Amino acid sequence: MTKKIRAAVVGFGNIGHAALQALQEAADFEVAGIVRRNPADRAGISEDIPVVDSITALKEVDVAILAGPTRKIESQAKEILALGINTVDSFDIHSAIPALRDALDVVAKEHEAVSVISAGWDPGSDSVVRTLMEAIAPKGVTYTNFGPGRSMGHTVAVKAIEGVKDALSMTIPLGTGIHRRMVYVELLPGYELAKVAADIKADPYFANDETHVMQVESVDALNDVGHGVNMVRKGVSGATHNQLLEFDMKINNPALTGQVLVAAARASMRQLPGCYTMIEIPVVDLLPGDRAAWVARLV
Amino acid sequence: MTKKIRAAVVGFGNIGHAALQALQEAADFEVAGIVRRNPADRAGISEDIPVVDSITALKEVDVAILAGPTRKIESQAKEILALGINTVDSFDIHSAIPALRDALDVVAKEHEAVSVISAGWDPGSDSVVRTLMEAIAPKGVTYTNFGPGRSMGHTVAVKAIEGVKDALSMTIPLGTGIHRRMVYVELLPGYELAKVAADIKADPYFANDETHVMQVESVDALNDVGHGVNMVRKGVSGATHNQLLEFDMKINNPALTGQVLVAAARASMRQLPGCYTMIEIPVVDLLPGDRAAWVARLV
Repeated sequence: MTKKIRAAVVGFGNIGHAALQALQEAADFEVAGIVRRNPADRAGISEDIPVVDSITALKEVDVAILAGPTRKIESQAKEILALGINTVDSFDIHSAIPALRDALDVVAKEHEAVSVISAGWDPGSDSVVRTLMEAIAPKGVTYTNFGPGRSMGHTVAVKAIEGVKDALSMTIPLGTGIHRRMVYVELLPGYELAKVAADIKADPYFANDETHVMQVESVDALNDVGHGVNMVRKGVSGATHNQLLEFDMKINNPALTGQVLVAAARASMRQLPGCYTMIEIPVVDLLPGDRAAWVARLV
Repeated sequence: MTKKIRAAVVGFGNIGHAALQALQEAADFEVAGIVRRNPADRAGISEDIPVVDSITALKEVDVAILAGPTRKIESQAKEILALGINTVDSFDIHSAIPALRDALDVVAKEHEAVSVISAGWDPGSDSVVRTLMEAIAPKGVTYTNFGPGRSMGHTVAVKAIEGVKDALSMTIPLGTGIHRRMVYVELLPGYELAKVAADIKADPYFANDETHVMQVESVDALNDVGHGVNMVRKGVSGATHNQLLEFDMKINNPALTGQVLVAAARASMRQLPGCYTMIEIPVVDLLPGDRAAWVARLV
């Protein structure tokens, strides 16, 4: 029997929880443990899984799944790669990906480890489809339409506005990459919706989009982690125009992210030292076991 | 300036013609020449392109695009790989892909060349999407629904039936991987539609599918190289069910195949010696130029 891949989950919010579930469903993985600030908090974690506050307290970790906030990823990944442990993350600030890739590539190569970054669904699996679409119809435009679903970045921006007690910003696709923002807010006592709504609409996160702000009694009552994407490309193959390509999904957001992270963790075991985004990894490496069997079944 | 990739097109039917067009649109390629049985036939080929009857008559070929019949590919590829020239093809007999891959892998490695096989759209780009879908929702069923569009295999099978002068078999998707066959035939004098239709429906290519046979005056008048596919997967990510994934395209068939062949020819220049299917190649390698620029733009 092949040795199982020992994976640690670093951070145990929605994504960490989903990554743990995906690891437990994957026959080629073994859970080395969970790393979180308060290791005494074992809610939702079965007794056989070690929970620690530092990855150095876990034995023989092959790969660390970084499930904490995007802003922490660079420093966490550098520390863990320096231990010779692979890392995977779902770093999602698109514009900062090239710099992160360059920085982690150096550390990974120095310590003969592999880092797979931005392995969620966008960036992540969507990036693979976007790249494939570009290759098979090189001229043309691809539109990525998100939602309906919660935007984490926009929600955080609303929560920072004065007078907002709790908030949810939903992204609604209008086509051709244009999105409507549906913002639901609970207000603190003494604040007026009109003023708060104006402040939200003036925020750089919202200033360029059609934005609607609604007051609700309970933001929690609206909570749904469903999300989706629709990517369309109309382009040219060779000299032939009007090639029509489309990818669509409706998914549970943390569950998909957790699954992609686990697939990327597997793929990390099969790459040469360095840092990779998902478009730089053969898709078959995301799957367990022998390549030849997948070639026979999926090609 | 980077040296251009010199590509030869071997075979000059629909696919060869489309591959030539895609090469001419690709700034990183140079057309080394066309290899065909009758090199005197230069219809549709500009004067600056050499047309020869053997690839050995062309200078400095980096990669050969095999655009002839699937049945010829193994022997052609072996000969060309033995010259140290990479090959790409759109070999499309799904069940025979593993054996072809094994056979060409040996020859390619022996001569330090690369072969990319089954690089069309199915097998080919669809295979990449099927693999990605399987990785991000490991449990579940994927249905590949083809058409509407002409099936080459089924059309050839009809043409072999006694009394058929010309034929076209269209594949119509009924969902869940089930297809209707719409067969259009011109009959030879003295043959009855009822008898020919019964023979077609009894053929193994048609026996298990809903098949309708219609007599037409001109099969040529129905000619349309448009095709399509719809792939759907409903599956499980981690422990979360009902993840809904879909890929859809409506395309000019030879144009897409020609474009995928050119992208695979480019990728062949970036792999270690051996034989690969498209799921074994990073998608970014299908695109020209520097990886980092594509990471910044597409991830």
